[in-house]
Amino acid sequence: MKIGILGASGAVGRQMIRCLEEENFAIDELRLFSSNSSAGKKIRCFGNEYELKIVEERSFDGLDYVLGAVSNDLSKKYWPMIQKAGAVYVDNSSAFRLQEDVPLVVPEVNGKDALKHKGLIANPNCSTIITMMAVAPIQRLSAIESMVASTYQAVSGAGNKGIEELEEQIEELRENKEVNPSVFPKQIAYNCIAQIGDFKENGYTSEEMKLQNEGRKILHNEDLKVCCTCVRVPVFRSHCISVRLVTKDVLNMDEVIEAMKQQKGLVYCDNEDVPSPLQTSDQNDVYVGRLRKDLIDDKGLCLWCCGDQIRKGAAANAVQIIKYLEENRQD
Amino acid sequence: MKIGILGASGAVGRQMIRCLEEENFAIDELRLFSSNSSAGKKIRCFGNEYELKIVEERSFDGLDYVLGAVSNDLSKKYWPMIQKAGAVYVDNSSAFRLQEDVPLVVPEVNGKDALKHKGLIANPNCSTIITMMAVAPIQRLSAIESMVASTYQAVSGAGNKGIEELEEQIEELRENKEVNPSVFPKQIAYNCIAQIGDFKENGYTSEEMKLQNEGRKILHNEDLKVCCTCVRVPVFRSHCISVRLVTKDVLNMDEVIEAMKQQKGLVYCDNEDVPSPLQTSDQNDVYVGRLRKDLIDDKGLCLWCCGDQIRKGAAANAVQIIKYLEENRQD
Repeated sequence: MKIGILGASGAVGRQMIRCLEEENFAIDELRLFSSNSSAGKKIRCFGNEYELKIVEERSFDGLDYVLGAVSNDLSKKYWPMIQKAGAVYVDNSSAFRLQEDVPLVVPEVNGKDALKHKGLIANPNCSTIITMMAVAPIQRLSAIESMVASTYQAVSGAGNKGIEELEEQIEELRENKEVNPSVFPKQIAYNCIAQIGDFKENGYTSEEMKLQNEGRKILHNEDLKVCCTCVRVPVFRSHCISVRLVTKDVLNMDEVIEAMKQQKGLVYCDNEDVPSPLQTSDQNDVYVGRLRKDLIDDKGLCLWCCGDQIRKGAAANAVQIIKYLEENRQD
Repeated sequence: MKIGILGASGAVGRQMIRCLEEENFAIDELRLFSSNSSAGKKIRCFGNEYELKIVEERSFDGLDYVLGAVSNDLSKKYWPMIQKAGAVYVDNSSAFRLQEDVPLVVPEVNGKDALKHKGLIANPNCSTIITMMAVAPIQRLSAIESMVASTYQAVSGAGNKGIEELEEQIEELRENKEVNPSVFPKQIAYNCIAQIGDFKENGYTSEEMKLQNEGRKILHNEDLKVCCTCVRVPVFRSHCISVRLVTKDVLNMDEVIEAMKQQKGLVYCDNEDVPSPLQTSDQNDVYVGRLRKDLIDDKGLCLWCCGDQIRKGAAANAVQIIKYLEENRQD
């Protein structure tokens, strides 16, 4: 298998390499791409050293897959080149997610959608993937009509520079120095910022709308209504989401629990065993806990889910999409 | 005025002293009480030094008011002694909050209830006070039928020892030392813990049920249904609450904003001006922002509120209750 990675020096790109190694992919060729600033640096993986290169006209020729961990703009720029080279592009940006002919895939939830791809498969938003993993077993029992979600998102959601900003601010405060936020709109150390993404006309942020728009596509549930509040918290890794949802039918809690336990990639935690970001960091499984009946609607449920957004929320999910395609090859 | 403070050396007790000073109370006598371990220490306030004393049989004799910042057990122990002495007890514990003959008061919301007291007035739960300040202007326009709330609660909600635990863990991690949580059930540094209080049979924690049970009493709205998830975050001070609520009638947003702007003690922030715990720390005002129409129900609203839970969530509210009583004396 011949694979290329766009944005290979970033937090998600590096994790993609690690996930490929962990899945024991038989890699015949690996091409790592980065921006000018990182080009020339070397990354050790698969028992070798690989030099980071910049993307050129024929960079993708001969590749089977390209994993993308770059901005929307770069993704739009590179996709025609990848398409021309005949490689399959698994894109972590949000550039193509809602495009009708582009599957948006969480393999354990709607893996089959990936098989209909036309060369391009989109990886969903990080909080959306984690939430989908937790609610998909419920959706299979009864259609989810609405979700109210509040997120607790780690700084690494903004990449390596998000991690560095939190680390620097902790040190600056320790030394009574002035803190000057640059990655996040306010100081993130010892603070919460209820603003991720740009504000839309309806008062929600772009990040908040993703859970509804992407959730509908992943769950094949066009009527799903979601009201989301996205909040950055001073945690390095793993996003958490507090979810209250209402289903079409009244559900039996034992059946919900059993469905969650059966869900591949999901770890169900009994009520007093509360998952936390630290506990779920650096692993591909999503954890769900605090499952309980809603106190407002008898068709309602509450839950708390956590997952490593660099792994399952981004890199691992993308690698799992390739794995799914390989395991379900129709040739 | 003669005032006593129970738990005067704790985070809330010390703040009560500061709030009394700020409100320029004409204090004729101040008696500060503490546990054995702090007794004998001195606290400088009102231009004098006051020695912390332990409570004895006649400790409350001659006092007009006693402010309580002690555990439920100690509050239950001291109340009969305070009652016997004829002082009015403003209690920050949850021991008496739901007792029928005990007013549960946020002065700006239901101050009049305080006037019906029989010697004992309860100060509500911290997250509840902050949420009530934000939603009371809405309740005045149309009854709130339900609320889905997720909290972002500061470590100082667990007192000085909560602050110390976060500080210590940050240092321990910096030095690559082992972290051994004692105040919180897990490491709180760079983590979120979706568990505050004890678990009830319905799967909710004691802290989570307070917003419904106390909210009903404060808003005089027995039908209010609340589904709450309480989460501790690595923030020193100020709780935040992400609230989605549904009212009886469809509300006009301009009217809601106007009502919020008119609410004494509440600072309304335009949508792109997002309040944060750091911004609202060490002040009595509660901040509300991110106000927007719900995407599920046309009678729904979403908002984000933040407030210093040691001040308005505890000490300041208690002192404001005394102020309200003094300003509305019927003698």
